[in-house]
Amino acid sequence: MTLVGAGPGDPELLTLRAVRALQSADVILFDDLVSREVMDFARREARKMLVGKTGFGPSCTQEDINSLMVSLAKQGKRVIRLKGGDPLIFGRAAEEIAACEAASIAVDVVPGITSVQGAAARLGIALTDRKKARRLQYVTGHAKQGGLPADVDWKSLADPSTTTAVFMPTRTLAALAEKAIAEGLDRNTPAIAISRATRPDQAVVTAPIAELAEQLAQAALPGPVLVMIGKTISLTDRVASRRFSCV
Amino acid sequence: MTLVGAGPGDPELLTLRAVRALQSADVILFDDLVSREVMDFARREARKMLVGKTGFGPSCTQEDINSLMVSLAKQGKRVIRLKGGDPLIFGRAAEEIAACEAASIAVDVVPGITSVQGAAARLGIALTDRKKARRLQYVTGHAKQGGLPADVDWKSLADPSTTTAVFMPTRTLAALAEKAIAEGLDRNTPAIAISRATRPDQAVVTAPIAELAEQLAQAALPGPVLVMIGKTISLTDRVASRRFSCV
Repeated sequence: MTLVGAGPGDPELLTLRAVRALQSADVILFDDLVSREVMDFARREARKMLVGKTGFGPSCTQEDINSLMVSLAKQGKRVIRLKGGDPLIFGRAAEEIAACEAASIAVDVVPGITSVQGAAARLGIALTDRKKARRLQYVTGHAKQGGLPADVDWKSLADPSTTTAVFMPTRTLAALAEKAIAEGLDRNTPAIAISRATRPDQAVVTAPIAELAEQLAQAALPGPVLVMIGKTISLTDRVASRRFSCV
Repeated sequence: MTLVGAGPGDPELLTLRAVRALQSADVILFDDLVSREVMDFARREARKMLVGKTGFGPSCTQEDINSLMVSLAKQGKRVIRLKGGDPLIFGRAAEEIAACEAASIAVDVVPGITSVQGAAARLGIALTDRKKARRLQYVTGHAKQGGLPADVDWKSLADPSTTTAVFMPTRTLAALAEKAIAEGLDRNTPAIAISRATRPDQAVVTAPIAELAEQLAQAALPGPVLVMIGKTISLTDRVASRRFSCV
């Protein structure tokens, strides 16, 4: 079983190994975050199964995906579990690896470019900077039950020398910003929301963190949405001009 | 001018776009962290200039690199600035982008797989985990003057629900661990040092964070070295057996 990172959307951001894995697969279990252009690299004869939230009916739980992976691998198929971004970063990989290990199925992992890296490259935003950010952190914007996760160290978002990337924050962004500001984050810290990073229809909204949730709601950008917060984001002119492209 | 991420070492972890950029370059300015196997993808006619610490004499400062980039780009050359990992993460990209912008040279960025992602994939370590780590952070282990950076939020390393990756920490690891423990990090938190991530001679040392610096010093592993700290690292058997490979 091979867990493969599909990257943020632009198929040119696949790694050579990911392409090779896709081209030798018997079955590909893919998420709805994987772009159609990435799927075009898959071996034509491979069986492609959408196991994301919009696929496989409402009963497609993580447990269902784990069972499917194990049962297909036990049939001797070359199974690829294809996930948006990097499978080891907010990708439920720990659970899938554990299920395979429990069934004595060997697992290999091919990393992928995260949407954070893809968006930063497209926008020319340095995620770290000797003068502005000595730390880069990824946090998740939602918990299992839909609210803000309880076990995130919100104080770590208040640090003025960090860049914070928040995965999938649309519904919880206002609460997240409020918590971080309560912990000491400057309410004027630059922030950006990026919709559909690296895809042809990538779109952005920039605002101070205290105002971003409201502006994002007004813009009603399609998902997936990613938010970045920090002094490194203060590149409004460049972002606006879209001079940078992900060549 | 194109900033390109060379990834952690294994050339199969280059993105398709990175390969394309390397194959169309006139000049490639590369760091000593870029592996020889990655350079084998470069256009044969391209001029390859090592501008890392061991290249270009002792005078090869960041300012020299910036000037070289600008002067070559002004000559109309297709210039690639090739860096280990991702150029936007601890890659001095902010300074290089600013130098190009000041000279009205357009910059494009191709992201790369970081050594953290490469090592985690090779070892089968989920960098986030619903049960163990809701946050992932990258910090740097050394400041401009060689010591521990002053402007890192050390308290953020004490959070038990995070995975911390420390870039290039060999000389400062003992001081870093001491600071994090003083801020509340459990001294028994699992940690791993990875030498030459994803390369054929990748090697690891695992120990509780309080003991890792001493064990790493004894092992005398060749650089570059990366350290990861957190409950997600507690996969000692798997790491020891090297059952996982970066396919």
